[in-house]
Amino acid sequence: MTKSVLITGGAGCIGSDLAQVLVDRGDDVIIFDNLSSGKLEHIESLLDRPNCRFIQGDLLERTAIQHALRGVCTVYHLAANPDVRFVPGDATDKDLQQNTIATYHLLDAMQLGGVEQLVFASTSAIYGLSDGRPIPEAYHAKPISLYGATKLGCEALICAFQNLFGFKASIFRFANIVGRKTRKTGRTVISDFIAKLEGNPRRLDILGDGKQAKSYLLSSECVAGMLFAVEHSQSALSIFNLGCDDQVTVDAIAKKVVARMGLHNVDFVYSGGEGGWLGDVPQFLLDVTAVNRLGWRAIHTSSQAVEIAIDAILGDRKQRVCS
Amino acid sequence: MTKSVLITGGAGCIGSDLAQVLVDRGDDVIIFDNLSSGKLEHIESLLDRPNCRFIQGDLLERTAIQHALRGVCTVYHLAANPDVRFVPGDATDKDLQQNTIATYHLLDAMQLGGVEQLVFASTSAIYGLSDGRPIPEAYHAKPISLYGATKLGCEALICAFQNLFGFKASIFRFANIVGRKTRKTGRTVISDFIAKLEGNPRRLDILGDGKQAKSYLLSSECVAGMLFAVEHSQSALSIFNLGCDDQVTVDAIAKKVVARMGLHNVDFVYSGGEGGWLGDVPQFLLDVTAVNRLGWRAIHTSSQAVEIAIDAILGDRKQRVCS
Repeated sequence: MTKSVLITGGAGCIGSDLAQVLVDRGDDVIIFDNLSSGKLEHIESLLDRPNCRFIQGDLLERTAIQHALRGVCTVYHLAANPDVRFVPGDATDKDLQQNTIATYHLLDAMQLGGVEQLVFASTSAIYGLSDGRPIPEAYHAKPISLYGATKLGCEALICAFQNLFGFKASIFRFANIVGRKTRKTGRTVISDFIAKLEGNPRRLDILGDGKQAKSYLLSSECVAGMLFAVEHSQSALSIFNLGCDDQVTVDAIAKKVVARMGLHNVDFVYSGGEGGWLGDVPQFLLDVTAVNRLGWRAIHTSSQAVEIAIDAILGDRKQRVCS
Repeated sequence: MTKSVLITGGAGCIGSDLAQVLVDRGDDVIIFDNLSSGKLEHIESLLDRPNCRFIQGDLLERTAIQHALRGVCTVYHLAANPDVRFVPGDATDKDLQQNTIATYHLLDAMQLGGVEQLVFASTSAIYGLSDGRPIPEAYHAKPISLYGATKLGCEALICAFQNLFGFKASIFRFANIVGRKTRKTGRTVISDFIAKLEGNPRRLDILGDGKQAKSYLLSSECVAGMLFAVEHSQSALSIFNLGCDDQVTVDAIAKKVVARMGLHNVDFVYSGGEGGWLGDVPQFLLDVTAVNRLGWRAIHTSSQAVEIAIDAILGDRKQRVCS
């Protein structure tokens, strides 16, 4: 009997792109998603395929994931709170629940079910502030957001479970992931700008001072990078930054969005401050030497990735308007 | 009105030593403990003092800590699962609950109550395996135990809460802490050996190969080091290793216990393997340069600390036998 792979958050932006690749290569794929931010439309075309099935389930319900893991050999764990921003007045346990506790439930179900391998979607947000130099995986992580903190909590649990129960674990700390579907799953700067400009094409409110500079990676390349590293890394526990080796500023993204939407004379209005929101890391650049040495390298720069994502989202929008 | 300080886990080994110092220096001290491992006898003499009171409460009950924090300016957070060992068959969420989730409840209650400062007892167990060189605070932590993982999860949450809500936070990664009271609060190698030799003075079962080498620090020095660093560090968020700069092996501790108990011809029987139990870090040495530079240095070596602790525990035992 072929063993299955299970993707938590498999109806999300990255999860559904991953599912597509795994189904296409013939894996027996279970998509596990509570649809809190994932969308059925992302996986609709996959659900007709004989080697793909969907389970609507929540990692906060332990029995749901315990049952789903029967016969599973590898888990790709992408489910998380998709909104990295903290707004004063928000519940402070949203990330703890949906990131750390959800991951614990998964890990415990994995050890109970004897699952052999975990691939985990972590984040560059675990690092917190840096000095501007590319951040290597060994950097002293001091997260400044609840999202980053609880993802680091997940990583720590994965390290311990990997050691105690002996499965293989690969942890990937993603740059900002962009793509066509990011419009629908959580906030990203690109989809925020497009939505704002759709509302008012003369003015664009920009969080922070616009000088925030970050790395961006296309969802499709993120999936390719993960699968490459999982296949080629021999370590029982591996941790990789996953991104490209350049940055793009928020201002530059704003200008690209304005240009791609064919707008002119848009007023940029800045909320001010270095970070866009409480817990925002105003700039980061990942040191991706480790995954490069393994043999994988992002095809597109941050700037190109952003442009492709803008065009994809705008194309999607036009299609919807036309249909 | 004098603002109070609150010690979680204040009836434990280190917590009650800390309470003693703070009460003696005139602080208005609240000891908060669920007495799951802490002992009332550790704080009995303090409870007659006008500036000390005890609240029996559990951090897993959010309202309990919310109420206790009223009028508190500084929290010393020492409550934790005191048993670092994981035994197959144990619940895997004990550390998650008592370390990470309990700490989250405290942090959330602190931000709701406007508490100004947190002092946190972390652990060298967050680091996982090292290459034998002294481990600096910036070392890439990859915990191999649930205890270490969930304490790293606490640290991550503290970093984020400190940034989001602006209180001062000091994190201390302790070496192995020993002292008279460690006999009664959780397992330590010294009290384990004494208990075993009391049961059978001819044979000592030793977990691992006896070559495990770790750093030890007296509870009283741990308290002094924390208070010194809290007073002298200006950072809004500081992280310090707290220990001395040498190690002692498990074999050496066994020999010391045997000698101090006046025993002869004891058979040492090893369970084998590098670590004493699943998730045990077989050897570590903390780089304590940072706290040394601040002006604090441990008085006793690891070896001396162990000897003092053995004598204190044995003295305590004799007192009990005589009385």
